[in-house]
Amino acid sequence: MGKAQCWMSAHIITDKEPTKELLLKLRSSLDGFRKELREKNIEQTKEDLRSIETADQHIIQAINTLEDTDKVANTIVKRMRDWYKLYWPELEKEQQGHKAFLHAVLEQKERPTKSMGGSYEERDMNIMIQHAMMCNLIYDHRDMLLKYLDDTMKEHTPNLQAVAGTTIGAKLLAMAGSLKRLSRMPSGTIQLLGAETALFRHLRSGAKPPKHGVIYNHQLMQRTPRKNKGRLARALADNIALASRVDYFKGDFTGDELYKRVEDKS
Amino acid sequence: MGKAQCWMSAHIITDKEPTKELLLKLRSSLDGFRKELREKNIEQTKEDLRSIETADQHIIQAINTLEDTDKVANTIVKRMRDWYKLYWPELEKEQQGHKAFLHAVLEQKERPTKSMGGSYEERDMNIMIQHAMMCNLIYDHRDMLLKYLDDTMKEHTPNLQAVAGTTIGAKLLAMAGSLKRLSRMPSGTIQLLGAETALFRHLRSGAKPPKHGVIYNHQLMQRTPRKNKGRLARALADNIALASRVDYFKGDFTGDELYKRVEDKS
Repeated sequence: MGKAQCWMSAHIITDKEPTKELLLKLRSSLDGFRKELREKNIEQTKEDLRSIETADQHIIQAINTLEDTDKVANTIVKRMRDWYKLYWPELEKEQQGHKAFLHAVLEQKERPTKSMGGSYEERDMNIMIQHAMMCNLIYDHRDMLLKYLDDTMKEHTPNLQAVAGTTIGAKLLAMAGSLKRLSRMPSGTIQLLGAETALFRHLRSGAKPPKHGVIYNHQLMQRTPRKNKGRLARALADNIALASRVDYFKGDFTGDELYKRVEDKS
Repeated sequence: MGKAQCWMSAHIITDKEPTKELLLKLRSSLDGFRKELREKNIEQTKEDLRSIETADQHIIQAINTLEDTDKVANTIVKRMRDWYKLYWPELEKEQQGHKAFLHAVLEQKERPTKSMGGSYEERDMNIMIQHAMMCNLIYDHRDMLLKYLDDTMKEHTPNLQAVAGTTIGAKLLAMAGSLKRLSRMPSGTIQLLGAETALFRHLRSGAKPPKHGVIYNHQLMQRTPRKNKGRLARALADNIALASRVDYFKGDFTGDELYKRVEDKS
């Protein structure tokens, strides 16, 4: 601004009035043009943003929600066990599994007469049953989230799903941030996604480098003997990288073939 | 056992057979008596345990569950906001409150056409709505837990409830472990329940002693100027101690009077 004013006042001093008017006109039309250009640009960017594929983002939100829901279910069901102990302390040992315990509570079976449970009123029983129903709802919600993930990945990232499996594939997506970023990662990075702590420990202190991140929980990894886990992890990461690229560029489904390749290394 | 055998063999050596037989008879009848006594004792203890008042334990479970549910509701609703942003990012700023946000989602209002939200399918929308419904259910559950606490305390610990309020009274019970233990606590201990960290810091390093624990959140404390908070905390703890004793010994309701006494100090 300062510079322009200076330059303008120089012209004023030379007293060439017509030129000055012309210049001002030119400037204002230029300003108008700039403003128009800027608005058009913003609109275009908005348009671009709107048409961006957000299927992978929905998958990421769903897997994060699923993990939260798992934690929540655990908190809520543990509290339920604790509370129900007041009524029927022996059930705790009989039903170790959370779902079986929940089932027994919701059936509203009478406790045995020789039970050591304390006194209670109808109100106490009602709230305990209600809390158990809440647990059940959360478990159902979890199942539906998993179903949603299954369906969405089958449609949008079928290759990734076939090779890595639904939850591990989704977790890898969440860690990468998007399908685009996952598809551009070298397989060595994919192999170690989720093992960042161990990786930096290795870099810092020279401890043993990690062999696998979240792919450690893959079904093939689980049933492979320890000495083969490293080789399998590499094969798995290689083929996950390939699969995510096929999915990103909307190639045909070759997930079965890729999975077969990994299986051969196990 | 070893000693008894020794003593018996000494008798065998003296060859007084009738005495030995008599002794054996005596011993066996004594054993029978002991066994019977033990069984009766166990039964009595079981009976005693069964008839123990567990109303305070139900209150403790309910307040713990309430606190868990608060945390859970927070986790779940935050995730919901995050997810819904994919569809309607502008709503995040419009509706700061969780409940208002939830309401807008459940109303299934269309996003404005100039919204910057991305593409979505019916499946995505369905699972987001379902998750929002889950949030709503958890909020409802929380309200019902609070209602249960209100009712139960009104019946079993009306004085404690009148002086301390429902949630703070229940928290104090949970920290003490039972109504019996709370009723035996000196008021100074009650005053500092929930401020253990600060108390031990004071004892260890000579930092300023804490003035209040969970009673800090009492409604009277909140509206008292800072310089009076210490005096009020003492009065509050004194009267909570009194109230819990009245409740424990099932005295008449004097909660209003006790509350009045605290109010006079604020």
